[in-house]
Amino acid sequence: MHCGVYTSDMTSASSSPAHAPATQDGDPRRLRAAVVGASGYAGGETLRLLAGHPEIEVATVTAHSSAGKLLSEVAPHIDLGHDPVLQETSVETLRGHDVVVLALPHGQSGTIAAALRAEDPDVLVLDLGADHRLESAEDWAEYYRSEHSGTWTYGMPELPLADGTKQRDHLVGAREIAVPGCNATAVSLALAPLLRAGLLDASRLGAVLPVGYSGAGRAAKQHLLFSEASGTASPYAVGGSHRHVPEVLQNLRRATGQDGQLLTFTPVLVPMSRGILAVCTAPVPGGTSTADLLGALQADYADEHFVTVLPEGVFPSTGEVTGANTLRIGAAVDRHSGQATVISALDNLVKGTAGAAIQSLNLALGLPEITGLTRTALAP
Amino acid sequence: MHCGVYTSDMTSASSSPAHAPATQDGDPRRLRAAVVGASGYAGGETLRLLAGHPEIEVATVTAHSSAGKLLSEVAPHIDLGHDPVLQETSVETLRGHDVVVLALPHGQSGTIAAALRAEDPDVLVLDLGADHRLESAEDWAEYYRSEHSGTWTYGMPELPLADGTKQRDHLVGAREIAVPGCNATAVSLALAPLLRAGLLDASRLGAVLPVGYSGAGRAAKQHLLFSEASGTASPYAVGGSHRHVPEVLQNLRRATGQDGQLLTFTPVLVPMSRGILAVCTAPVPGGTSTADLLGALQADYADEHFVTVLPEGVFPSTGEVTGANTLRIGAAVDRHSGQATVISALDNLVKGTAGAAIQSLNLALGLPEITGLTRTALAP
Amino acid sequence: MHCGVYTSDMTSASSSPAHAPATQDGDPRRLRAAVVGASGYAGGETLRLLAGHPEIEVATVTAHSSAGKLLSEVAPHIDLGHDPVLQETSVETLRGHDVVVLALPHGQSGTIAAALRAEDPDVLVLDLGADHRLESAEDWAEYYRSEHSGTWTYGMPELPLADGTKQRDHLVGAREIAVPGCNATAVSLALAPLLRAGLLDASRLGAVLPVGYSGAGRAAKQHLLFSEASGTASPYAVGGSHRHVPEVLQNLRRATGQDGQLLTFTPVLVPMSRGILAVCTAPVPGGTSTADLLGALQADYADEHFVTVLPEGVFPSTGEVTGANTLRIGAAVDRHSGQATVISALDNLVKGTAGAAIQSLNLALGLPEITGLTRTALAP
Amino acid sequence: MHCGVYTSDMTSASSSPAHAPATQDGDPRRLRAAVVGASGYAGGETLRLLAGHPEIEVATVTAHSSAGKLLSEVAPHIDLGHDPVLQETSVETLRGHDVVVLALPHGQSGTIAAALRAEDPDVLVLDLGADHRLESAEDWAEYYRSEHSGTWTYGMPELPLADGTKQRDHLVGAREIAVPGCNATAVSLALAPLLRAGLLDASRLGAVLPVGYSGAGRAAKQHLLFSEASGTASPYAVGGSHRHVPEVLQNLRRATGQDGQLLTFTPVLVPMSRGILAVCTAPVPGGTSTADLLGALQADYADEHFVTVLPEGVFPSTGEVTGANTLRIGAAVDRHSGQATVISALDNLVKGTAGAAIQSLNLALGLPEITGLTRTALAP
Repeated sequence: MHCGVYTSDMTSASSSPAHAPATQDGDPRRLRAAVVGASGYAGGETLRLLAGHPEIEVATVTAHSSAGKLLSEVAPHIDLGHDPVLQETSVETLRGHDVVVLALPHGQSGTIAAALRAEDPDVLVLDLGADHRLESAEDWAEYYRSEHSGTWTYGMPELPLADGTKQRDHLVGAREIAVPGCNATAVSLALAPLLRAGLLDASRLGAVLPVGYSGAGRAAKQHLLFSEASGTASPYAVGGSHRHVPEVLQNLRRATGQDGQLLTFTPVLVPMSRGILAVCTAPVPGGTSTADLLGALQADYADEHFVTVLPEGVFPSTGEVTGANTLRIGAAVDRHSGQATVISALDNLVKGTAGAAIQSLNLALGLPEITGLTRTALAP
Repeated sequence: MHCGVYTSDMTSASSSPAHAPATQDGDPRRLRAAVVGASGYAGGETLRLLAGHPEIEVATVTAHSSAGKLLSEVAPHIDLGHDPVLQETSVETLRGHDVVVLALPHGQSGTIAAALRAEDPDVLVLDLGADHRLESAEDWAEYYRSEHSGTWTYGMPELPLADGTKQRDHLVGAREIAVPGCNATAVSLALAPLLRAGLLDASRLGAVLPVGYSGAGRAAKQHLLFSEASGTASPYAVGGSHRHVPEVLQNLRRATGQDGQLLTFTPVLVPMSRGILAVCTAPVPGGTSTADLLGALQADYADEHFVTVLPEGVFPSTGEVTGANTLRIGAAVDRHSGQATVISALDNLVKGTAGAAIQSLNLALGLPEITGLTRTALAP
Repeated sequence: MHCGVYTSDMTSASSSPAHAPATQDGDPRRLRAAVVGASGYAGGETLRLLAGHPEIEVATVTAHSSAGKLLSEVAPHIDLGHDPVLQETSVETLRGHDVVVLALPHGQSGTIAAALRAEDPDVLVLDLGADHRLESAEDWAEYYRSEHSGTWTYGMPELPLADGTKQRDHLVGAREIAVPGCNATAVSLALAPLLRAGLLDASRLGAVLPVGYSGAGRAAKQHLLFSEASGTASPYAVGGSHRHVPEVLQNLRRATGQDGQLLTFTPVLVPMSRGILAVCTAPVPGGTSTADLLGALQADYADEHFVTVLPEGVFPSTGEVTGANTLRIGAAVDRHSGQATVISALDNLVKGTAGAAIQSLNLALGLPEITGLTRTALAP
Repeated sequence: MHCGVYTSDMTSASSSPAHAPATQDGDPRRLRAAVVGASGYAGGETLRLLAGHPEIEVATVTAHSSAGKLLSEVAPHIDLGHDPVLQETSVETLRGHDVVVLALPHGQSGTIAAALRAEDPDVLVLDLGADHRLESAEDWAEYYRSEHSGTWTYGMPELPLADGTKQRDHLVGAREIAVPGCNATAVSLALAPLLRAGLLDASRLGAVLPVGYSGAGRAAKQHLLFSEASGTASPYAVGGSHRHVPEVLQNLRRATGQDGQLLTFTPVLVPMSRGILAVCTAPVPGGTSTADLLGALQADYADEHFVTVLPEGVFPSTGEVTGANTLRIGAAVDRHSGQATVISALDNLVKGTAGAAIQSLNLALGLPEITGLTRTALAP
């Protein structure tokens, strides 16, 4: 489960001879972007958002087994103003862009990124996959069972840090950005302010996440079929094996300056295409009130454009954020058990992936952070 | 959210003049049943199961605002072999049956049950509503804000009790049965054996339950509309207000002989009609293994026909139990956090409501416990 | 079934004393709009689109039973930049706007529109309901069983007319616009060019339309519940009683300059929130090819921004147009039967309702026709 | 789209060395069945029904790539009382059964069936695939592009024949049964009585069929993914290429004794797992009333247990027949267009596939026709 990044169509990056890029006569004042893995859900969502971004032009789209097709054949819902041919993914096709967005299976971003950077140290590369998120090579080895590619600047602008700043500051001017995992975003932003405020028992963190199917990507797998998924709630990665666990813990360490957090994490596939609802629980110190929880969340997020802390008694639904770059959070102290329940909702393909990428891209390039993004969702 | 019992069509029991019951020429050897609230989901599911029950004949069906309609108009999926007219709910229409199943909104079962019993002390009455589940009048008052109607025999045969018996023993020969709440069944049966075995920290119990919409009943309410529900995961009763909380705690007390359990309970409506997936968590003593958890579950359920403990590494999905009277459980100790995750799945309308009623009815009447029930589900 | 316009919350327009409009400090250069019936699906979708419209500011929102609530309580997915209180619907609250969008149940637009116009002959009023669509008072009486309110300019810019012009020309400068019915748009735009080209037997027109639930509005009705709708395809208005039939026939008469069209029209509710797929059939003259059909469609639509004629062998799905103001059409001549199958897809709330309203509004006010609208859809 | 028969797991029948059949100690009085292709939807549904069939014991289950797995791993919803290992599909594993049900991709049934018959001329073989449905080798070649395997007895008991009998009569004692296509059943049974009564223009038959995804089988294909399917209606096989077209026409010829029928046939995938709603249209002779249509349907079906003709003004939904072996039909003459609309609903996996197989099996073996089948559906 990978926030929609991976598709069967992207099993290897090609080094085949270059084809001429399918550019149009672009506006010279707009930045030129390439989207790698454009036939998958994360790549497609990136294109959807870039289609409405006033400062960026999509000059090149690439894929693997779909290379040679028109974009309209694999993503008929996208209108870029032109209908480019999907190119093979290679240094040649990706050369000469201001921005390259990689939506590749994990393990494939490192090589192509290094090659692009060697040619043009100024190119901005965003990795929607997991390769460059983790700082710890040990964590990487344990959860991904491959060699670590290194650590890029983490694309979660709103993450509060132990030194009182936000992760946003690190993104300004960055040229290598690791876009966070969708579940990791939902859980990290829900818990970080409360841990920072000392309101949660960090050793007893729990998160159960009803999630939609687009997070599992577009590759054809039997358990993702409509008939298999319809009418059922299916847990997976039970018992601590989900790859977003070390990413969440890394975020919580950075937010608090402390380690030792323990998280029990259970995603549950439910019959919807998009959306993550992270239901997080933890014991609170005696006397902690719901107002205390909400106050701590507001302390970190009151000024954030894309994070909304809901009033007492109100909790978010994923349907409120479909298509929007918004994360909404509600919290309560249970009246009997004395535990906190903190619930966050986001669209895994937007705030969880492609929207976070655009937001980080805006910061990196000095554009207004909200350019091309919206807080208004599609409902019903 | 009431396991499908309530419908707008059943807002009051009628005492209007009796209509002649819509009986067919029944087999004299079969028991005669009346289903009250037949136009709702719980009533309809009771009819679906009774339609295949070899020892019971549905002699009478009643409703409130749908009274006067044919059953085929409100439940075209049911084939009883005849198409009865829905009667008004009254002592007159319900007189003369061996079994009366009440699928009424809470607060309405007490009066009609008392009147039926006064006439015929041998009639078996099953209440699919909440009225007679709780032993504590205080709990009732706190959660239901009305006067307590008393406590009936609790219809959860598999519940292990502190004295080493099962709740089953209490159901043999019973004449007043309180059918459990659907969420309460999912959580209680998942946690009780582990608490009995001392494998969970009873003060740190958590349960997050993706649930389907039929549990909310058939009454027309805006938040239950398809367009509202499709594509969204919506938490409700966050913070301890769900009415099944005291019912679960009562069950856990009876299973362990101890009190003091604390439960953080969060149901989440997800876009499916049927199904409850209870994702339960709690800290475990150091050194506890997944095998220990599964062993404790097997110790209580190995001989149960309708409860299946899954092998290590396997967890249930609700789609595996749709239409079946089965509860399936899997468990794991998290490899990092040292908490247990215990997951159970059931069909809220079958094992969670109408199937539990039939199973209890079989026990009460001395029929084989599995009569008219199945472990085979409808999938996909 | 009314394209999402109607909600239980809007059963009567109020004449209660005015409340102060919930305006923000608006940009004086932007036009001020009021949306009446903002708590329903059509009203909400109008707000969603206006939230992204650069020339219009939403100054006032009104409702009936939800009056007094914040917009965020009934439409948490909308971000207008402020959170207005829903006003009562009255001449007082609606006074002083440049644009008033009425999303009211049929029969309620006439009075309020007349009162607004009497005060300010320059105000642009758009009626998303049916009241002002039909030219024939007889048709109105037959299908709506109430008094006819008159006929406004029909808001379907792309409709080709018998004189060789488009309906667009009539919308420039209009001040009273009747927004078309959603199903009527899907069928009329699919059939009109082919009838104009003489390629269909007008006496044998058929249309079967799988449609989503949002078209039925937001009022709580039992048959619209998630549990009722999930997993079922349900036909309605079978046999010619759907209110969009006379509207389609009126459009076809205007497109061809002829009458005598006969249409067999069957909508089928299927489990999705949005979308209409109109599968239209009719006999064709001997020798007619698929290329002939597509050529006739291109003849009328090649220059249209929001209507796409697909290549031979390609047919639209509703998922390709969710949230977009696009209608997509494919066509084929059946290789055995010699009938044409023409299939169009649109989002009933956008191109079928609110998007058509914005498009017409742009034309009426002299703005670029595509302002605030998009051809890119949300998928998956 | 193949009514759920095909799965990627069944791409070739194996001739590898035999494994010992996974039999249990069976009741010697029960017939022994083998189900080939048990890991697909059609095979699984056959098992679901046989699990409740009192006269048949499932002795052997086979698959291709899933061979070696337990049944509970590929179909956890099935309870046969034992948990057999899936065998390779071979003459050896299939030898010695009274009944063999083949749920294989088309083109694979002929060889294995011939081999089984050569050994045991008394074995009953049912083919859920298409191989033996068509009488015309030309039709087969045109639609399936492979060599014709011959024609078996067609398993549609209720089909009225031109000589006044029913297809049922041909099934008594049959040993080779071709189970009909699911869409073909829905359309053929809806149209045949009306054509026989001379009430439809046979040259202008139309059918648009919203269908669920299980009909497309369990093989992993991108367009069948939940995220692709959710929220969209997708037509396919537009223009006459669907393989059920020649099957319907063959049925209509047999029912009427005439040829020359022309059918425009368009299936539309809609977001549900099960169900076919066939919306059929055709011109009627002047003066034909709805009562005439319903009368003709009743003339053929009044005595049928599994076909229900609905009263005037009532039309079926697929949700009414989920899991049941029922086909429900409603009809109307359009008040304006003078065309008939005839709508039938069935569950593609039951009445459309596995239920039809069991019903035919019962007839072939001299069991009561309804054994192991139900008219009660699962709803909601």
